[in-house]
Amino acid sequence: MSRNLEASNITGKSRLLQLNQVRIEDPYWSEYIRLVREVIVPYQWEALNDRIPGVEPSSAVRNFKIAAGEENGEYWGMVFQDSDVAKWLEAVGYLLATQPDPELERIADEVIDIIAKAQQQDGYLNTYFTLKEPDRRWTNLAECHELYCAGHMIEAAVSYYNATGKRKILDVVCKFADYMDTVFGSEPGQLHGYDGHQEIELALVKLYRATGNEKYLELSRYFLDQRGEQPHFYLEEFEKRNGTVHFPHLDMAHDHAYSQAHQPIRQQEKAEGHAVRVVYMTTAMADVAALTGDTELLEACRKLWRNIVSKRMYITGGIGSMAQGEAFSLDYDLPGDTAYAETCASIGLIFFARRMLEIEPNGEYADVLERALYNTVVSGMSRDGKKFFYVNPLEVHPDACGKNHIYDHVKPERQGWFGCACCPPNIARLLASLGEYIYTVRDETVYTHLYIGGQANLELNGQKVRLEQQSAYAWDGITRMTVKTDAPLRFALAFRIPSWSGGQATLQLNGQTFTYDDADLKAGYLIIDRVWSNDDAVDLVFDMQVRRMKGHPHVRDTFGKVALQHGPFVYCMEEADNGRNLHQLYLARGNKFSVRFIPDLLGGVKVIETTVHRVASDEWQENLYLEDSHAGLKTESFIGRFIPYFAWANRNVGEMAVWVRDC
Amino acid sequence: MSRNLEASNITGKSRLLQLNQVRIEDPYWSEYIRLVREVIVPYQWEALNDRIPGVEPSSAVRNFKIAAGEENGEYWGMVFQDSDVAKWLEAVGYLLATQPDPELERIADEVIDIIAKAQQQDGYLNTYFTLKEPDRRWTNLAECHELYCAGHMIEAAVSYYNATGKRKILDVVCKFADYMDTVFGSEPGQLHGYDGHQEIELALVKLYRATGNEKYLELSRYFLDQRGEQPHFYLEEFEKRNGTVHFPHLDMAHDHAYSQAHQPIRQQEKAEGHAVRVVYMTTAMADVAALTGDTELLEACRKLWRNIVSKRMYITGGIGSMAQGEAFSLDYDLPGDTAYAETCASIGLIFFARRMLEIEPNGEYADVLERALYNTVVSGMSRDGKKFFYVNPLEVHPDACGKNHIYDHVKPERQGWFGCACCPPNIARLLASLGEYIYTVRDETVYTHLYIGGQANLELNGQKVRLEQQSAYAWDGITRMTVKTDAPLRFALAFRIPSWSGGQATLQLNGQTFTYDDADLKAGYLIIDRVWSNDDAVDLVFDMQVRRMKGHPHVRDTFGKVALQHGPFVYCMEEADNGRNLHQLYLARGNKFSVRFIPDLLGGVKVIETTVHRVASDEWQENLYLEDSHAGLKTESFIGRFIPYFAWANRNVGEMAVWVRDC
Repeated sequence: MSRNLEASNITGKSRLLQLNQVRIEDPYWSEYIRLVREVIVPYQWEALNDRIPGVEPSSAVRNFKIAAGEENGEYWGMVFQDSDVAKWLEAVGYLLATQPDPELERIADEVIDIIAKAQQQDGYLNTYFTLKEPDRRWTNLAECHELYCAGHMIEAAVSYYNATGKRKILDVVCKFADYMDTVFGSEPGQLHGYDGHQEIELALVKLYRATGNEKYLELSRYFLDQRGEQPHFYLEEFEKRNGTVHFPHLDMAHDHAYSQAHQPIRQQEKAEGHAVRVVYMTTAMADVAALTGDTELLEACRKLWRNIVSKRMYITGGIGSMAQGEAFSLDYDLPGDTAYAETCASIGLIFFARRMLEIEPNGEYADVLERALYNTVVSGMSRDGKKFFYVNPLEVHPDACGKNHIYDHVKPERQGWFGCACCPPNIARLLASLGEYIYTVRDETVYTHLYIGGQANLELNGQKVRLEQQSAYAWDGITRMTVKTDAPLRFALAFRIPSWSGGQATLQLNGQTFTYDDADLKAGYLIIDRVWSNDDAVDLVFDMQVRRMKGHPHVRDTFGKVALQHGPFVYCMEEADNGRNLHQLYLARGNKFSVRFIPDLLGGVKVIETTVHRVASDEWQENLYLEDSHAGLKTESFIGRFIPYFAWANRNVGEMAVWVRDC
Repeated sequence: MSRNLEASNITGKSRLLQLNQVRIEDPYWSEYIRLVREVIVPYQWEALNDRIPGVEPSSAVRNFKIAAGEENGEYWGMVFQDSDVAKWLEAVGYLLATQPDPELERIADEVIDIIAKAQQQDGYLNTYFTLKEPDRRWTNLAECHELYCAGHMIEAAVSYYNATGKRKILDVVCKFADYMDTVFGSEPGQLHGYDGHQEIELALVKLYRATGNEKYLELSRYFLDQRGEQPHFYLEEFEKRNGTVHFPHLDMAHDHAYSQAHQPIRQQEKAEGHAVRVVYMTTAMADVAALTGDTELLEACRKLWRNIVSKRMYITGGIGSMAQGEAFSLDYDLPGDTAYAETCASIGLIFFARRMLEIEPNGEYADVLERALYNTVVSGMSRDGKKFFYVNPLEVHPDACGKNHIYDHVKPERQGWFGCACCPPNIARLLASLGEYIYTVRDETVYTHLYIGGQANLELNGQKVRLEQQSAYAWDGITRMTVKTDAPLRFALAFRIPSWSGGQATLQLNGQTFTYDDADLKAGYLIIDRVWSNDDAVDLVFDMQVRRMKGHPHVRDTFGKVALQHGPFVYCMEEADNGRNLHQLYLARGNKFSVRFIPDLLGGVKVIETTVHRVASDEWQENLYLEDSHAGLKTESFIGRFIPYFAWANRNVGEMAVWVRDC
């Protein structure tokens, strides 16, 4: 089992900036982060404590109190209810890392005290099994999310410890992980199992990074490598417990592809099954590959990445083409109207992309990360931070929702909170930790992956450097990076050239045009390696022309259609702007587009306006089918309007379409 | 309750020809009827007796034997398994009506003996309840198909009695119906219920016609009018049996629209719920309306007809847009790839259309009847009569079947037989009784609805007349009707002008061009009222140009596409002729079509060939989305081939599409 755990050549010397090194001040993103801090996290705390009138109670905090002996009552909720508290605590950690908040910290400390009390003597921590099935620990790993919940608690603990330096919750999860390490493994008497929902694997890597304890990294790799091995653990445990099941409709004991347990992970070449699980798994695979120098594992990551982004991803960065199993379906199968494209899956794709960026700074990873972030993730919440999408379709017909059951999962309006409340807290923790996604440092090169305004404080060659980004990237494609340094210092700044920009940027260095050649471009990054002095400033301007995007010719749903993209944003048409029956609209080839910012529309967005043709007819009356020559189809033109996809469904319920016919 | 049961003005004096009055000899249809006689019905008998190796046993005959005391054992099968025996017997009756077959009759008599022995003392006949739940008769009408099975046995009995004159099975069902008449009704102590699956209603009308006993017609009307009344019978019986359910996933006790019990039937304006049930119900509604002069009921039939054919029917005559509930969805929602379009539902639509034709000879009813018959019904079976489609999609992507679960109901190949074997016997009984669908006689006018070759013997004004049809209608759009009469006789022949013909026919009377004017055309029929002499012959030629059909502009799935129709047949493209990725193909406007008969293709079909453009690109490589200007989309042209829809899936598994893009 023991491979070299030292960072190897595949990691280079990439390092992440800690969250407290990065401060975000951005005209687009600051508002979202404010919403997380002021709306979502407080709301979520109320929800976790069953204090939201008219919303199904969560009982998540109460379950911990009961397990801690502080309240009487019975466990209530899903088998993975604990993870909601953990995700909240993780987000709190990120918020505290970037801005002190004594009251929030006090609340967090209180809940940590309860969690600690709920932990069992041997280190075990899970209120469902502690309260409901104390004799059945680890008897149904395929379905019961014990290690998944453990993973989220570990992520919370690391986040909170990094933010506050307080060890209490970190000690709790270390004790739990130490206990797990005795339960799982290849020794006689140990379980050779792994969780049906990947999460523990990436969490143990974080715990390793926080503590330096290599056994956590080893355990992560053990879980990864056990996955899909024969004889199959899920069948063995299924027989051992006499065939009882927790989620009868999933049949996880036998449908191994659902949880990516159909093959050893190193042999998997296509993204199969539940989309969130896939990307949580590949995130951990990339982590372990980076930390152990396991090139075979890295190759497996690359294969799955390639399959997802070149054959199984929506233009919005959504993944998971079908509702049943919340899962991938098959190559080039990307229906827009029955899409699942769960918000959490795109968040997981962002985790995966960032891990790959640490291994190899390749602009494609950041392009996909940006695509998912600026489109599906922000689409996942309303402009006021109070309502959320779980499912992110690319085409919606509200009349058919609730009538044709292939759309049963599609909601034409964001919902307040969910019985299975995974997406809102996932959005919260991602946005609260957004500072971790902007830069990586590799050797003495600072890579800028995202153009988000703010400051980053780092050390290069032992010297403190501050980078200040003033960004109007989201809407205008421009950003300025200013270097703050006490003394001139040689290092490289690597700027991502977003794929949407056509591969070109206009640069100024200290106000002078800066020309670069192909040798300065490497894997999607423009690298400026020089001696930087204080106040040196780089201005970047990306070409913000409206892009007419096409889908691969094998994709049925996008064929003969076009989607508009402007900067990082994918656009869509809504009924509110363009009337009903969006399927009747065409964009002529060679259309001119006019783009303008409307401050009081949808919280302030740029719209794209252009001539649109509607093919319609008055002659059909009661006919359902007519000969073409009698159909009387006529083309009317009007100025149609596209809005950014993320902003859809913030007005009345209506039709929406990302892909529009072209002719 | 008692309305006038005499035929009223809404029926006119329409009468059906008995099956033994009509003989089919047709280059297209005779082969199908031979398959029913020589392949399907014998195969079905083997299947009902569990003698097909490798096929799940039916146990349907065995259940009757056990209930008759002739075998020991336990009931096996669906709650409606009895109906499989009944549908077989019904088809046998139709076959015997048109051609003697002593061996088949002997087998039928034997099974009738068994059925009679399985009948209970009080007349009750249902092997499921007799064997499995003798104390639960009539306790779950919503789900358990007791009256549905009774209805099929009545249809079988009437068919067999009409064919053979033997009363035994007719007496059995009369005794059963007499018993039902004591159980159901508005008197104190009677159940005011009705079956979850309509069928008894239309069957009781047949029993009324066979026996003249008006109480059967009254009982049919009682069942129809109770449907959807409040307080709701399904809720009452649900509570009475303490909430037990038979099909938990359907929730029929509460989902009343599924079984059209959400409103009284006279108030229903849209076809909702399970498609087969809708059309079985409307068939009975039309029957009862015709026989009782109930114009309100007729109006309800017209509304539902209008809704189906102008908003909820596929161009193939398929109905039911979704798999869940095998049901209608909403107006203009006609997805081709996730269509359900159950073969049985189109058969039920044919039943309904024929009843409406009896009430009012309007070509639209016959147009729809023909559309369903020549496309979905014959598509339902393979060219060798051995395999069947339950679901009839208009677009198939075999790779996605079994991968994207929205296609779980779609099979790219016909299947041998089904656990719920409703479609094959339904096809058999329809084709075996096809002679009933060709003509109706109203006053002294003989309406020809379908151009199917053969003879019809009838009496007009007390005089025997024989009509001989020589038809090459299916492929060539021509037919000749010759009158055989001992003496000249005045009557009218009314010929349907199919809507696909553009409303025009070229006629010759005794070899001379016959011109007609608008006054001769009535509701889609050309009426020739004259004194007919022996050997007078009418030749009809319909315009067989290839028709480019469009769907209503509100139908998303057909928008921007065209379907080809040639005569009564809707055409489709298959991968076998046109390669993969049919979605990349375009038909240019103004295309010329070449049509030719290929005798050794698919049992002999006419194909349509035309220039087809494929939009493709070699430049995509690993890209999933590209800017239009980089997409490198190019148009290649080739001679594409369309085959009749009914003949698809008789070669290798491959893609199929009815609707093709036009540009």
